[in-house]
Amino acid sequence: MKRPHILVTNDDGYDAPGIKKLTEIMRGIGDVTVVAPEEPMSGTGHAITVRHPLRLRQLHKEEGLQVWACHGTPVDCVKLGEQIILRRKPDLLVSGINHGSNASVNIVYSGTMGAVLESSIGGTPSIGFSICDYSHKADLGSVDKYIRQIALQVLEKGLPEQTCLNVNIPAVNGSDIKGFRVCEQANARWVEEYDERKDPTNRDYYWLTGKFELLDDRKETDEWALRENYVSVVPVHYDLTARHAMEHIKKYDLNV
Amino acid sequence: MKRPHILVTNDDGYDAPGIKKLTEIMRGIGDVTVVAPEEPMSGTGHAITVRHPLRLRQLHKEEGLQVWACHGTPVDCVKLGEQIILRRKPDLLVSGINHGSNASVNIVYSGTMGAVLESSIGGTPSIGFSICDYSHKADLGSVDKYIRQIALQVLEKGLPEQTCLNVNIPAVNGSDIKGFRVCEQANARWVEEYDERKDPTNRDYYWLTGKFELLDDRKETDEWALRENYVSVVPVHYDLTARHAMEHIKKYDLNV
Repeated sequence: MKRPHILVTNDDGYDAPGIKKLTEIMRGIGDVTVVAPEEPMSGTGHAITVRHPLRLRQLHKEEGLQVWACHGTPVDCVKLGEQIILRRKPDLLVSGINHGSNASVNIVYSGTMGAVLESSIGGTPSIGFSICDYSHKADLGSVDKYIRQIALQVLEKGLPEQTCLNVNIPAVNGSDIKGFRVCEQANARWVEEYDERKDPTNRDYYWLTGKFELLDDRKETDEWALRENYVSVVPVHYDLTARHAMEHIKKYDLNV
Repeated sequence: MKRPHILVTNDDGYDAPGIKKLTEIMRGIGDVTVVAPEEPMSGTGHAITVRHPLRLRQLHKEEGLQVWACHGTPVDCVKLGEQIILRRKPDLLVSGINHGSNASVNIVYSGTMGAVLESSIGGTPSIGFSICDYSHKADLGSVDKYIRQIALQVLEKGLPEQTCLNVNIPAVNGSDIKGFRVCEQANARWVEEYDERKDPTNRDYYWLTGKFELLDDRKETDEWALRENYVSVVPVHYDLTARHAMEHIKKYDLNV
């Protein structure tokens, strides 16, 4: 196989430890173009920038590696990377390594996974990687072989159309990881979400916070797999149709 | 039934014609709390604000109606509306009327639908409304009976768990609308997406633009329904698992 070209992005910003690690792993597989946000963009989901123009800034260039920063969101990074920098689709898009879990419902808020979904809409095989540890000092020493192996498998065997992967890695020593597990997205939500404060002029303001509430005890889920020290792999698509609900809706009286 | 309490939001901002129309329609059904962005937030998808605190500003209060503006995203508006203003879940959340289609792949970029998905994660019956006309001068005169009818049906008959609705209205005269059609999300994408320009100092910048490319000719889809002048109703969920892809992924060699 010809040496693949791999586009790398994230939502923690171009200088986060996670994207540096992911870039290093991908350089062992192919030529790499990094296009990542100038600043942290956690929680930007599938946001795109429509109300102001975007700029690109080249940070580094050598044989087989170029690194760019962009003032937009992770989805903007994918679009600009493919259309302005590469002028073609890459052979693979990887996003991460995100500092914090993107398992279960976290996927909908995740800029890391927004980039992955965007790339898959364009037809590129795409994988998001996250480690279940919010610290930028998380131990990334043992993730290499898992990330490398699944990237190689996606390059070799492809992904079904309109499908990408959400890969989450438990925050444990590498020797405790039991391997991969192909899973479904667990049902969960965030609750009790604001820290209410008063500013020095006695006006209210609100910090988003909250706690994670798992609503799913099935063993087929990513949350179960992670709690059992497996690397979870959830195949994901952007068709949000709730087919199981069609019959219910068709019973509505919709004559007007 | 007790008079329902309805939370109203959008992504075009609190003073857009669409949300004023939607508020008026909902006041005919129940008590209304509006919590909407201070500024247009199109394309913000499921983004949340995590890096700075949020504030609320009350714009209006009378019997059965309160209106608030928030500096955050549509998803932030839902969270703050439920947790800080109402201090409970509403009986119904409606978002819109969005100025522009949120059918097919547009759902993933849509702040309007981000708010709807967020509310449904919390268990509230939720509906997004969009009209397939980007102009703020779009004729909203004939949408009332469609929006009212489906809102009443959702209040009366409920929605299946973890399911919300994406309702799109064709931009035609009301008399040309053929009625409702329950559909699936069409497969589509945006292509040729940047307008490349030079600023006065000869530096490059990029405006997001592009054209919509429909990749789906099935008659079961929202795009088909809208082109045939039906109001499309797609039941939507936030479980992004691509179950049809599980077998393919399970054939990967994932031994490391």
